[in-house]
Amino acid sequence: MDLRLGDYIDDFARRDWQTLDPAAVDDPIRIALVGLGWFTREWALPGIERSAFTEATVVTDIDPDAIESVASGTDLTGVDPEAFCAGEVADEYDAAYVATPNATHLPYVEAAAEQGTAVLCEKPVEASTDRAERLIEACEDAGVPLMVGYRMQTDPVVRRLRDLLDAGFVGDPAHVHATMSQTMLGELTGDPDQWRLDPELSGGCALMDIGIYPLNTTRFVLDDDPVAVSGTTRTEHEAFAGVDEHADFRLEFPDGVAAMCTVSQNAAHASRLEITGTEGRLVLDPAFYEREERELAVERGGVRMDVEVDPVHQLEEEFAYFGHHLLTDTPVHPDGRHALTDSRALEAIYESAETGEVVRLPA
Amino acid sequence: MDLRLGDYIDDFARRDWQTLDPAAVDDPIRIALVGLGWFTREWALPGIERSAFTEATVVTDIDPDAIESVASGTDLTGVDPEAFCAGEVADEYDAAYVATPNATHLPYVEAAAEQGTAVLCEKPVEASTDRAERLIEACEDAGVPLMVGYRMQTDPVVRRLRDLLDAGFVGDPAHVHATMSQTMLGELTGDPDQWRLDPELSGGCALMDIGIYPLNTTRFVLDDDPVAVSGTTRTEHEAFAGVDEHADFRLEFPDGVAAMCTVSQNAAHASRLEITGTEGRLVLDPAFYEREERELAVERGGVRMDVEVDPVHQLEEEFAYFGHHLLTDTPVHPDGRHALTDSRALEAIYESAETGEVVRLPA
Repeated sequence: MDLRLGDYIDDFARRDWQTLDPAAVDDPIRIALVGLGWFTREWALPGIERSAFTEATVVTDIDPDAIESVASGTDLTGVDPEAFCAGEVADEYDAAYVATPNATHLPYVEAAAEQGTAVLCEKPVEASTDRAERLIEACEDAGVPLMVGYRMQTDPVVRRLRDLLDAGFVGDPAHVHATMSQTMLGELTGDPDQWRLDPELSGGCALMDIGIYPLNTTRFVLDDDPVAVSGTTRTEHEAFAGVDEHADFRLEFPDGVAAMCTVSQNAAHASRLEITGTEGRLVLDPAFYEREERELAVERGGVRMDVEVDPVHQLEEEFAYFGHHLLTDTPVHPDGRHALTDSRALEAIYESAETGEVVRLPA
Repeated sequence: MDLRLGDYIDDFARRDWQTLDPAAVDDPIRIALVGLGWFTREWALPGIERSAFTEATVVTDIDPDAIESVASGTDLTGVDPEAFCAGEVADEYDAAYVATPNATHLPYVEAAAEQGTAVLCEKPVEASTDRAERLIEACEDAGVPLMVGYRMQTDPVVRRLRDLLDAGFVGDPAHVHATMSQTMLGELTGDPDQWRLDPELSGGCALMDIGIYPLNTTRFVLDDDPVAVSGTTRTEHEAFAGVDEHADFRLEFPDGVAAMCTVSQNAAHASRLEITGTEGRLVLDPAFYEREERELAVERGGVRMDVEVDPVHQLEEEFAYFGHHLLTDTPVHPDGRHALTDSRALEAIYESAETGEVVRLPA
């Protein structure tokens, strides 16, 4: 463990994956945005524009008004989904960003793959493991790169936390706590008809939509995958009838280390990731929301160091990474196979919530 | 919910249970201390002396040197355990504080009960549910008050947190996280021969010794008892062979609210209790150690209020409560039956760790 403090601080926000000079990029990766919900409009589109390695060129959505409102007065080409899937404007983009409701990722990714287009697909990659596998295979069969939009993995704060764990800075992990909660109908939208409340479109609510953050971020920072899961779901408020309003779950990692996780779509806003090691602790709080800072606390031997850092634009980082890796012809991570492990784990947690049993996961 | 801010702050550290003027007490409750380990010497004895309602009069221990070192040069009467149990100096105390290894509480409490002496017994009340029941019945049969030493319950910070929950200040609880960890051999003692590592004397290690804090404090602040538990234990370091070095457990409360808990006797020092409600959050961090402050954070509607308060001496508060209630002939809480619920829950968590199954608890 040979971390120099000066380097650690000075290089904190560095892009450890970047080999290409952004100023040298004349032809950034042209991106078609598929699905123009609030996250695409407020985060992905600005992220693509901020990144030197990408530019937005095409937009599509099942709602013509959404296309009109995004494309109007810009250079963006608006097309309807049928025209997009038929490849009618395929010469205008190099990659597709798919951010439609979970259960509708598959047809768009299949269409993009058929067009030989790289894909950045939002997480969860699909609404079920079965459909996730078909989606991943479509990209593999077509030989197109598939990245999944885990924005935490390209956030430098999360990468530096991972570096500390990897270097043994807090010893061996003993246990993990993670929580993420929001008042979905209050914070995000007052609309009770939204697709996240429709299990056919979402595949689930609290666990599927936000449980994936504690799950995937823990996997990423521990650099390991769970071997067993258990969990429960709970719904009290009538707006969440048919889906999980609250969920808690336990992930067991290969050496027996447990991550104890809770998520809620109808509780006070919070997000936190806490790793207790044999020799110290790492705490990210706030942790998971794109719209607020992340603060890292490093505790060891009675000393606590709080790291506050100018927040990155998480979607700029994610698209910069994606564009950079396509431009340099480098494999992307997190890829589809990485995401499939989450799909399996989430499905296993829902199964556990039904049966009350621990579910072992394939290695 | 009619909490006035001025009252809340001004009365934060009040003893809401106190009806007797400490200055009016001429004859405090005389206490015999049974078991003179570090906690008795460093915390209980000073606590008794600081409290206006109690005074220490008698000490006993299986180690004659411990008696000598504590009693020498003081007014304390030192007796050997046989003499204590035979009641030879029973006219010198009104109550017995029992702080021997867990599995040896029973004979001392039985002796005290036979003498008609009130008891303050350390937690866990005994090393098994069976012995805990015998201990409690001995006191009930003899008609002597039995209090169990849950020092968190008489800490004003914990009581104020409970007041806020009870008043619905953060809405309905959605989920709870609690953690407590220490490097037992490093922080407390370097002695690998200590009784906490002997399952015959302790009944268990991480779960039994410190798991009881997250368990009992969550029960106390939610004012409810778990209906089901599950958990796992894990031992890596050879010093902990035969006992649980790490443990994690889930408590399910009647309305489905989950408390996700982790404890370790061999991980970086930490203690935290975090309750997320539908409308806000309450966080106690540090939470559980007698030797450090407790800090309460109250979050609601985007505002966070940090409450730092001059720490009480937890053992002074505990003994003051005990002495006060004996002097006023008022029932004590936490009593034996309350503690028995913890014994059953801990035993059920160990059972779950063996079987991998959720264990339902009797109502």
